[in-house]
Amino acid sequence: MPIRVTRRETFNAGHTLRNPEFSDERNLEVFGKCSNPGGHGHNYVLEVTLEQEVDPRTGYVFDLRLLSELIEKHVLADLDHRNLNTDVEWLRGRIPTTEILADAIWDRLEPHLPPGSLHSVRVRETEKNWVERCRG
Amino acid sequence: MPIRVTRRETFNAGHTLRNPEFSDERNLEVFGKCSNPGGHGHNYVLEVTLEQEVDPRTGYVFDLRLLSELIEKHVLADLDHRNLNTDVEWLRGRIPTTEILADAIWDRLEPHLPPGSLHSVRVRETEKNWVERCRG
Amino acid sequence: MPIRVTRRETFNAGHTLRNPEFSDERNLEVFGKCSNPGGHGHNYVLEVTLEQEVDPRTGYVFDLRLLSELIEKHVLADLDHRNLNTDVEWLRGRIPTTEILADAIWDRLEPHLPPGSLHSVRVRETEKNWVERCRG
Amino acid sequence: MPIRVTRRETFNAGHTLRNPEFSDERNLEVFGKCSNPGGHGHNYVLEVTLEQEVDPRTGYVFDLRLLSELIEKHVLADLDHRNLNTDVEWLRGRIPTTEILADAIWDRLEPHLPPGSLHSVRVRETEKNWVERCRG
Amino acid sequence: MPIRVTRRETFNAGHTLRNPEFSDERNLEVFGKCSNPGGHGHNYVLEVTLEQEVDPRTGYVFDLRLLSELIEKHVLADLDHRNLNTDVEWLRGRIPTTEILADAIWDRLEPHLPPGSLHSVRVRETEKNWVERCRG
Amino acid sequence: MPIRVTRRETFNAGHTLRNPEFSDERNLEVFGKCSNPGGHGHNYVLEVTLEQEVDPRTGYVFDLRLLSELIEKHVLADLDHRNLNTDVEWLRGRIPTTEILADAIWDRLEPHLPPGSLHSVRVRETEKNWVERCRG
Repeated sequence: MPIRVTRRETFNAGHTLRNPEFSDERNLEVFGKCSNPGGHGHNYVLEVTLEQEVDPRTGYVFDLRLLSELIEKHVLADLDHRNLNTDVEWLRGRIPTTEILADAIWDRLEPHLPPGSLHSVRVRETEKNWVERCRG
Repeated sequence: MPIRVTRRETFNAGHTLRNPEFSDERNLEVFGKCSNPGGHGHNYVLEVTLEQEVDPRTGYVFDLRLLSELIEKHVLADLDHRNLNTDVEWLRGRIPTTEILADAIWDRLEPHLPPGSLHSVRVRETEKNWVERCRG
Repeated sequence: MPIRVTRRETFNAGHTLRNPEFSDERNLEVFGKCSNPGGHGHNYVLEVTLEQEVDPRTGYVFDLRLLSELIEKHVLADLDHRNLNTDVEWLRGRIPTTEILADAIWDRLEPHLPPGSLHSVRVRETEKNWVERCRG
Repeated sequence: MPIRVTRRETFNAGHTLRNPEFSDERNLEVFGKCSNPGGHGHNYVLEVTLEQEVDPRTGYVFDLRLLSELIEKHVLADLDHRNLNTDVEWLRGRIPTTEILADAIWDRLEPHLPPGSLHSVRVRETEKNWVERCRG
Repeated sequence: MPIRVTRRETFNAGHTLRNPEFSDERNLEVFGKCSNPGGHGHNYVLEVTLEQEVDPRTGYVFDLRLLSELIEKHVLADLDHRNLNTDVEWLRGRIPTTEILADAIWDRLEPHLPPGSLHSVRVRETEKNWVERCRG
Repeated sequence: MPIRVTRRETFNAGHTLRNPEFSDERNLEVFGKCSNPGGHGHNYVLEVTLEQEVDPRTGYVFDLRLLSELIEKHVLADLDHRNLNTDVEWLRGRIPTTEILADAIWDRLEPHLPPGSLHSVRVRETEKNWVERCRG
């Protein structure tokens, strides 16, 4: 019987939403106040879910302390207290929307997890907006 | 890679739960204190989820400001600070349970969204009870 | 050393905000959409705080199960799933704003508590609005 | 159109995580500080979701008061304010991880619900860790 | 009997914590990762509390819609989706810590409120850190 | 102008509430299901508030990273994942109610903080019950 386990982490980061190929007017039209050139930021919440059979020797699907360490090493060490437009190698050239964050975090984590175990990556940007990439 | 985006909104409304074809005793038996004729009310939370491919020009699945405006126009303008039994044209003749709200809100929103994009409508009535209509 | 203990309870109720001495226009001007004649409602949160010395035999300031029972008996039994304009004897003739609720709940509870122990009554109407009556 | 309804309940319990076939060192390695022999505990949150067609006579998928009573009778009466290692008949011989709790609670509830209606059992152990058993 | 009413608002902003009179080493020592030159940001929560007698004609201490408008006009219009180091006239020359924000927001709001009515300004920076300026 | 700053931390612990001088019947009468001899536990939340003038060189009242380290060293290192009845030297001989925890944590922290700066220690035991020791 497969069971899903989720780990919740938080990070604080800055960003602005602008497509460099758009004019200022077009950026303002598409991204609204999120396109302010000085930037703003968020308390992001990250929820990573794995799905696997329970190991009968431990009662665990996956050690959540280990999952927390993998998230810290491969994701938060690069994102926490950083500017997502300029400070993060693996976001370079992408507009750092919540969608892109969820997509990129999935790609960062998956190679370090048991094959097929990653079930979803959810990123909450505010109390009102969140995004999820799920196993297809 | 499809991604899900969710927008959370709130509204406050009044209702009572009574089937006019039931006797008072039957209404009390089925709906308990929710059948009080004077009515009561809730701080409802509405969470609408869309699923689509990310647009590479914007990094967005769907502009959440636009989704918020569609929810305001087609749903909240009719429900917020209203009596769900008497004030809402598109709930007339239905018992305004949370299930019926989720079902009716789905039908209100879907025609205004990209075909096939609506993934779920979740309505939270209290901290302890919530309801979800999902893409079948 | 005095210590404060708080008990949180919830109730759901309906109301409308209208002063019967005001015209419809004046009610709309003062109370906005809260004056809708059909009424609306809320998931109210009630937080009652007592302050006293700790009893060394029990480590308790006041038994919170007993406080919960007193709140149920003297407050929630009358308010939960009721219409605050029409169903509650001890709110009759008052406009059921959150301020009036906090004030009236204080008066309902105080005679049943140790003299001088009631420290505050906080009523949360929504995530954005709350009210507190404190010991003067 | 099937709709999902969820009921949230809470319970407080104590546990320690140790496999009696492991040495103390191995238990510490696998379970970390959760293996402290004196035990610790949690405010668990339980969210039970059913999925069915809405009954047109009531607007309900399933009476959530009845679901709450079934959860109280078959689950919480045994778990609340108990030691999960020693006090619960139906957890005997299992390591009381959150995964095992979700799995065992599913098996306790399913026989008392309409066939095929149980959709998921989610158990939250802390703000950072939660677990879900879903319909396969 | 004075009653306290509170309004909760949110805003998203970017900042970095650096004293221009400190060396880079001293800034890192004092402000840690908050001194990252690229900046980061937060979902700030602002809670403004007034204390006054209840107006018997309305049951209100102060119209919370009006309080919300005053906060929007005098505070949020300048802070929301802005860089607190560079974009805000009335923070210029100050290090935008949460303490300084609470202090400066108090000074922005007080002249627009009834004399003596402002009771506290609380600013929450993260789930773990918040700050309050209270009536002295 | 004094400002208050608060740091929130969490810990998980087990306890049972029994006065060894009471009979089993008296313990059950006073403490109810909290007196279960096998024990239970909680996800405790600890909120520590300091009040001081802001340091104009840093914009800080007190470095919250340092406050977090002091809480970890003098409080959480002893309480987290422990049995409060048997594992904690500085709770020995006291009934580990939330009141006693708040009182004892105040006494643990105060000698390590600037004289007169500690303003309150709040301990949340569940969503419904919390306790606060304040500066007298």
